[in-house]
Amino acid sequence: MTARGPTVKAIPDGDDRERLTCPDCGFIAYENPKMVAGSVVSVGEKIMLCRRAIEPRSGVWTLPAGYLELNETPEEGAMREAWEEARARIAIDALLAVFSVPRISQVQLIYRATLAEPGFSAGPESLEVELFAWDDIPWDDLAFPSVRWALDEYKARLGQTAFAPGVNPPGMVGDRF
Amino acid sequence: MTARGPTVKAIPDGDDRERLTCPDCGFIAYENPKMVAGSVVSVGEKIMLCRRAIEPRSGVWTLPAGYLELNETPEEGAMREAWEEARARIAIDALLAVFSVPRISQVQLIYRATLAEPGFSAGPESLEVELFAWDDIPWDDLAFPSVRWALDEYKARLGQTAFAPGVNPPGMVGDRF
Repeated sequence: MTARGPTVKAIPDGDDRERLTCPDCGFIAYENPKMVAGSVVSVGEKIMLCRRAIEPRSGVWTLPAGYLELNETPEEGAMREAWEEARARIAIDALLAVFSVPRISQVQLIYRATLAEPGFSAGPESLEVELFAWDDIPWDDLAFPSVRWALDEYKARLGQTAFAPGVNPPGMVGDRF
Repeated sequence: MTARGPTVKAIPDGDDRERLTCPDCGFIAYENPKMVAGSVVSVGEKIMLCRRAIEPRSGVWTLPAGYLELNETPEEGAMREAWEEARARIAIDALLAVFSVPRISQVQLIYRATLAEPGFSAGPESLEVELFAWDDIPWDDLAFPSVRWALDEYKARLGQTAFAPGVNPPGMVGDRF
């Protein structure tokens, strides 16, 4: 038995787009964009980054962030990811940015946060978790363009409490480095 | 042939949550929260609402909004929905709110917009499209709680250009009227 699943593209009745359908049973797999929730977590004047233990981009640095799960709010998702990846309990303070990576149908909601309790450590998806002063951030070893964008938003909003969340830099669509 | 599709819940290898799997072929249907993109469109001092031609909540009033499609940014989705439901070409001006309805795994990004071109009319999913002065809005015939929330955010932000997007009112999770 192979996991075939929906493999045939067809336009369902009453729809106007091709959807993946299962040739065996007619099941329609409606594919939706995926939401990522994450955070820029500051500790004093330093920023928490996680070195990825998993693909894609294993071995390089990222923010605690990941796919939103069912029945979660984005804030809950960002808090869960901070725990899973950095064993950090965070307090969210503002929505820093809404980034889009349309090529891979991803929308990222990135929050600004601090530690709600002291302490952090590498979760199962991280090799290590470290605090970096701004000038020590490993800019050449960030996992995704949107990590850089989020850090730039964080820096631009330091000291501000009510602001419109940032979006992709002009012309940038989040393609890989 | 019946459209059975994935019907059995099981925890895939390396995962920590139950996912729907197909008993015939082993396909795993990863279910993700769905994103809704929409807008509060103002025309002069009036606000555009659409009377729904489809379930759920057929016959009552809503904002132009709907599920984000693959490879869309939320702004593109809001513009597409305004066209589909109200035959309106809109210009987005700000992110008004990020609402969550965790019971149905929905996150809504609601923008503030104006008409980019004059004119609007009912699209196939609307019975009619109308402009309402604030006091004439059919408050008792709005389709979803989040329509009310979005209108309240719109009103609260009139004249403001840089603000943090709103979230659900305290204690509200978007359950149906």
